[in-house]
Amino acid sequence: MIRFLEVKTTQRTEMVNIGRQVRDAVLASGLTEGAVHLWSMHTTCALTVNESADPDVARDMVWKMGELVPHHEGSYRHGEGNSDSHLKTSLFGPGLSLLIHRGDIILGTWQGIFLAEWDGPRTRSVALRISS
Amino acid sequence: MIRFLEVKTTQRTEMVNIGRQVRDAVLASGLTEGAVHLWSMHTTCALTVNESADPDVARDMVWKMGELVPHHEGSYRHGEGNSDSHLKTSLFGPGLSLLIHRGDIILGTWQGIFLAEWDGPRTRSVALRISS
Amino acid sequence: MIRFLEVKTTQRTEMVNIGRQVRDAVLASGLTEGAVHLWSMHTTCALTVNESADPDVARDMVWKMGELVPHHEGSYRHGEGNSDSHLKTSLFGPGLSLLIHRGDIILGTWQGIFLAEWDGPRTRSVALRISS
Repeated sequence: MIRFLEVKTTQRTEMVNIGRQVRDAVLASGLTEGAVHLWSMHTTCALTVNESADPDVARDMVWKMGELVPHHEGSYRHGEGNSDSHLKTSLFGPGLSLLIHRGDIILGTWQGIFLAEWDGPRTRSVALRISS
Repeated sequence: MIRFLEVKTTQRTEMVNIGRQVRDAVLASGLTEGAVHLWSMHTTCALTVNESADPDVARDMVWKMGELVPHHEGSYRHGEGNSDSHLKTSLFGPGLSLLIHRGDIILGTWQGIFLAEWDGPRTRSVALRISS
Repeated sequence: MIRFLEVKTTQRTEMVNIGRQVRDAVLASGLTEGAVHLWSMHTTCALTVNESADPDVARDMVWKMGELVPHHEGSYRHGEGNSDSHLKTSLFGPGLSLLIHRGDIILGTWQGIFLAEWDGPRTRSVALRISS
């Protein structure tokens, strides 16, 4: 089963928690053991799992990524001015494979599922496949 | 089904589009719904998905990775002089799981599949498994 | 089948080879063709594959990650003082999907499976699922 989640972002760079949407899709599938695979349909936003309890964690991560890979650099040649967004996407990665056990996603206590927006604000699409 | 793709690279660091090879393998399998998993058999080249329309995107990404993780650093101890290549490989990641839907790989408009060469030129091997 | 591997780390940042534990689980499953999926249950340690022959490779990688993303920065807001660990975890990634062929994991000559500890020492848990 393939479906697509829609995710609206509100800033140029931010991490948006999509855990509820993913979990709802898993629960709706009725599958109790298996995997859910997520795929960003874009080249300037990524998917990752990290702490969702304290929003300062995501804020610090986004800030530091901006320090490491600044928006503007004289040596970038790509005309759209978002080469940083492309690189950040490959650094975090475009896909996630999560495990389903006893009807729920296997996640640690502090783990949340995020879309990492590196060139927003935009409306993003995430493909989702649940398999046994 | 496991098969191995051969990829020849021509520079020390570059991103090589392997989308045609991967798509050909998917089409040849005849599978219409499922997943294709790719795995780099090496510790100094990675796999990623990013923009394939404008070659300057890959060029900028490779350039910036060289700024972040330079080839030579006084503090590296590994005798082969390619510690940067190893780190870049873990940053981009050695594997990809792509979804197959209606007989083709699910990719966004701008997404292409790349082998990221971090210590070439070499002939590289990528394991590929298609599963339903 | 889901099981959990326990991994004890001894330093704040290090790469711990978990290949034997993963391979033992694969061999015990008796599965000859399929995949093994690994998932870190934590937000401050990651999973990766890289060279296991020369320990200086992992040492250099951990050192350089500390240069890129230092432990302390004035601009971090997260109160626990481990924002660097969270970012390093998303950069390496929390999960791995490895292929099983002819009863063993498909790995290149130099590839070893590592837990990348970014905020130890701790006892870590890695979820493992083997599927055909």
